[in-house]
Amino acid sequence: EEEEEEEEEEEEEEEEGHSSCTVSSLNTALSSELRWKRKYDVFVCHSFAEKDTEEAKRLVSFLETPPRSLRCFLWHRDSCPGSAISTEFCKALENSHLRALLITPSFVQDDWCSYMMHQTLAERPMSNTMIPLLLDLAHSQYPQELRFYYYIDLSRNPDYGFNVVNKTVQSCKYTN
Amino acid sequence: EEEEEEEEEEEEEEEEGHSSCTVSSLNTALSSELRWKRKYDVFVCHSFAEKDTEEAKRLVSFLETPPRSLRCFLWHRDSCPGSAISTEFCKALENSHLRALLITPSFVQDDWCSYMMHQTLAERPMSNTMIPLLLDLAHSQYPQELRFYYYIDLSRNPDYGFNVVNKTVQSCKYTN
Repeated sequence: EEEEEEEEEEEEEEEEGHSSCTVSSLNTALSSELRWKRKYDVFVCHSFAEKDTEEAKRLVSFLETPPRSLRCFLWHRDSCPGSAISTEFCKALENSHLRALLITPSFVQDDWCSYMMHQTLAERPMSNTMIPLLLDLAHSQYPQELRFYYYIDLSRNPDYGFNVVNKTVQSCKYTN
Repeated sequence: EEEEEEEEEEEEEEEEGHSSCTVSSLNTALSSELRWKRKYDVFVCHSFAEKDTEEAKRLVSFLETPPRSLRCFLWHRDSCPGSAISTEFCKALENSHLRALLITPSFVQDDWCSYMMHQTLAERPMSNTMIPLLLDLAHSQYPQELRFYYYIDLSRNPDYGFNVVNKTVQSCKYTN
C-alpha cells in the first residue's frame, strides 16, 4: 500500500502560524503567473452517491478556507446546467490545474466516473496532475488503469489526507 | 552496456533443422499447459511513430512465422476500437505472458509509452516478464526506471535481436 506520510509536522505548523508562514509558502508556489491561466487550482471529481458528495464538499470547504484559499471546481456548484455533461466535464478539466479523484466503491461502479477517470488520464497521462484519493476502497479494487499512480488513502485519517491534497496543490508546477 | 549474447549458435541450428529440433524445443517450453491460460505469448509495445510501428510489425511477423509460431499482441491489429486506451492496454498486459518494450527516442518522449512502461513495471516488477528492446537510443537515454533490467540492443543487429526475443519467449516460465 502506498501513502504519503512525510511532512505532517510541517503542515501542522503552517496551520497554526498562517499569517506569516502561509504568505511565504504562497509566494513560492501559488504566486506563479501561470496559476491564473486556469480558472481553478483543483477539480474535485466524485460520484453522486450522497456520501461521496458530502466528502467532496468537506474537502472543497477545507481547501477553499483561508489561509489555503484554493480555487476549486465542484460539479453541482460550478457546472453549467443545460450544458452536455461530457462537455462540461471537459471544460472543467481544461480549466483546472490539478484533478483530485475521490475513488470509492460508488466511483468504481459508476459509468460517468469511469468516463471522467479516462478523460483525466487521456489528457496528460504522465503529467502529475491527477491526485487519486481512496475512500473505503480496498487496494485490490483500485482501478487497474491507475495501478502505478501514487494515491492518498482518506479512509484512515481524512484530515491528514486533506492536508496532503492541499500540500500537493500548493507545491504543483503550474503549466499553461 | 548490457546485451544478451549467448546461445546464438544454438539459435542458428534451430533455424536450419526446424522439422525435428523445433518440435522438441516446443515440447520443453511452449507445450506447458499454462501457456494457454493467456491469449498471447508476447505483447509488443511500441510508440506510434512510423519507424517504430514498422519495426514492431517486423518483429511480430518474425515471431509469428513458423516454426516460431508465437502468438503476439500488436496494438493497431489486436486492440478493440472504441474501448478506452488505458483499459485496452491493461487487458493486453493481462492477456500476455511477456511484454517486449520497443524503447526508442519516440518511445521515451511519448506520454502513453511512459504510461505503458509504468503499468508493465507496476504489474509484476520482478517477474522477468518484461523484455526491453533498445533501438537508436543511447544507453544514457535508457529510462532510469528500467536501469537494472537487462536489455537487447536492436540497433546493431536487429535479426540477431529478434532471435534473442524468440529465445526468451520460448524459454520463459509461463505462469497463471
